[in-house]
Amino acid sequence: MAPALEAQVQQEEQSLPHNNNFYNTLNDATHRSKVTVIGSGNWGSVASKLIASNTLRLPSFHDEVRMWVYEETLPSGEKLTDVINRTNVRELYSFHFFVELRDSNMLVFVTPHQFVEGICKRLVGKIREDAEAISLVKGMEVKMEGPCMISTLISQQLGINCSVLMGANIANEIAVEKFSEATVGYRNNREVAERWVQLFYTPYFIVTAAQDVEGVELCGTLKNVVAIAAGFVDGLEMGNNTKAAIMRLGLREMKAFSKLLFPSVKDSTFFESCGVADLITTCLGGRNRKVAEAYARNGGKRSFDELEAEMLQGQKLQGVSTASEVYEVLSHRGWLELFPLFSTVHEICSGLLPPSAIVEYSEKLPRSF
Amino acid sequence: MAPALEAQVQQEEQSLPHNNNFYNTLNDATHRSKVTVIGSGNWGSVASKLIASNTLRLPSFHDEVRMWVYEETLPSGEKLTDVINRTNVRELYSFHFFVELRDSNMLVFVTPHQFVEGICKRLVGKIREDAEAISLVKGMEVKMEGPCMISTLISQQLGINCSVLMGANIANEIAVEKFSEATVGYRNNREVAERWVQLFYTPYFIVTAAQDVEGVELCGTLKNVVAIAAGFVDGLEMGNNTKAAIMRLGLREMKAFSKLLFPSVKDSTFFESCGVADLITTCLGGRNRKVAEAYARNGGKRSFDELEAEMLQGQKLQGVSTASEVYEVLSHRGWLELFPLFSTVHEICSGLLPPSAIVEYSEKLPRSF
Repeated sequence: MAPALEAQVQQEEQSLPHNNNFYNTLNDATHRSKVTVIGSGNWGSVASKLIASNTLRLPSFHDEVRMWVYEETLPSGEKLTDVINRTNVRELYSFHFFVELRDSNMLVFVTPHQFVEGICKRLVGKIREDAEAISLVKGMEVKMEGPCMISTLISQQLGINCSVLMGANIANEIAVEKFSEATVGYRNNREVAERWVQLFYTPYFIVTAAQDVEGVELCGTLKNVVAIAAGFVDGLEMGNNTKAAIMRLGLREMKAFSKLLFPSVKDSTFFESCGVADLITTCLGGRNRKVAEAYARNGGKRSFDELEAEMLQGQKLQGVSTASEVYEVLSHRGWLELFPLFSTVHEICSGLLPPSAIVEYSEKLPRSF
Repeated sequence: MAPALEAQVQQEEQSLPHNNNFYNTLNDATHRSKVTVIGSGNWGSVASKLIASNTLRLPSFHDEVRMWVYEETLPSGEKLTDVINRTNVRELYSFHFFVELRDSNMLVFVTPHQFVEGICKRLVGKIREDAEAISLVKGMEVKMEGPCMISTLISQQLGINCSVLMGANIANEIAVEKFSEATVGYRNNREVAERWVQLFYTPYFIVTAAQDVEGVELCGTLKNVVAIAAGFVDGLEMGNNTKAAIMRLGLREMKAFSKLLFPSVKDSTFFESCGVADLITTCLGGRNRKVAEAYARNGGKRSFDELEAEMLQGQKLQGVSTASEVYEVLSHRGWLELFPLFSTVHEICSGLLPPSAIVEYSEKLPRSF
């Protein structure tokens, strides 16, 4: 099911039921924002649906949402683009598979993180200079010299500004319009942030903006390390008290780590959906938590690799690799002692400590005084 | 099982195995702090055990911990004091049931909240002027003119300073030494806070201090309103995404409400155990969540009174009455629109809205801009 890096060109357009004729007469079509979604997948499709419901409704956006997808063959043998064309999402708005991005001024990135760099390389010189990007991509890498933010990668490769959208938003639940939230992290321009909020906001998907790109994006990655810790607590059957304590300590380390790396990161960001809410969702459900629970139940005798292979059909756990990457940063900078939870998660995952070490903090935690 | 307001006088003392003989020789016994625990119950007994493990170990405390209890007859027909005397907690330290508090300088209040005022009236003139109190009592009342803090009540009635200890600490889990945390909220004196931290801190019970009595104490009460909301989400089977969003919105309203009432309340308090961790524990387990779930499953057709009677053997839900009290404050001050979650919880509990209203925020939530 590995996606081929191949954009699909289908120059079809179809007339859609419009419900904004009134507004159309008030707005010059040439000034309306035009959106292209880059990527597909579960989250990409759901995000496209959210976006399209707003572009059809709001006069400041061009109705049509374009989608730039990887072609992939699904387990059923069908091609992704065929499925998209057949599903009811299709009815909502005009899908437009294409490689020409020059008329889009809002680019929504929602691909697997390992493809971002390659895609950006293909897009260089093909986009508008005044385009704004937003990354919905979770899973930035944390290298020894610091995190490699996806928003920074997009910004640097394409020479455009890039915001992020993160939060407690499981694609399948949003697809059936269950109430949830997200946070737009933006850098400087409040108007740009407002435009992104408008594009995604629906009555069941509440979007707020925080002027803190790095903080918002780091939340989306670091929470997976905490989810591993929460999974250990579940596997050890320590109860909700302990789990809540571990989640809180995790949130504290997420905040401290982000602020050490980027002094501009704000405390308030961790109260947003991208912070505390996404952490809760991920520590209640989610595959990181699930596999870590199995690891602890087996007393660490079966490796993460083995459990992943068995439970995730070849997918790798984000949390385990992020914990390892964060550990590298902490060692490199001499910060290990400041982050007992993060470092313990890695030491458990790599077999140096037993799962029960996750609650053995008596000598590691800083006292309040 | 209603406890009679009757202090039990048992002037028995027993010699205990001491493990601090070394320290005893170093410290003048007259300068050591002497602790009395006022109250019993599950949490009182567990707290006494925590405390006693530290008074025996630390030279700055008098070994003996005294306990001032309500006598009550348990469902088994036994008297509470007989049970305490029989249990293994007894072995840990010297229980001392008494009415004389004049030599105690650290008073730990851990009674049901409705008895605090009556107890304080009995203690007036019987305590040391330099005594310090700490309240572990959850469930302050919120009156129309504002919350009636238990710490303030104790302070005013007895003319002594009162700190608070709150957090994600379910007595039964702490009793079996599962890892958890708590927050000491103190007013001005850092040394006093440190003494309380020392008294409670164990390797499995991590205590930190926050200079914010009101913030810490309000967390302990307001979280129950959010737990009702979380229970509705569970009953409606909305999934973890939605539950996380509701918990976050609840945390936000807890913070906003506390800060409007007490401008001294700090944002950082809500990152402490008393804030986010206690909220998580209460929204995952807890009876408020449980009964609210049943209410939503029944589509609001069976009243809270009925469900409480059936599920809680005569106990009343804190969250429902707190929601009603908070609603009074919000109406009285014209703040209803600022607190859509708090007000909706009350409107659902009182039958004005269906349970599904808990996620119908589209028109109520303030947009980010």
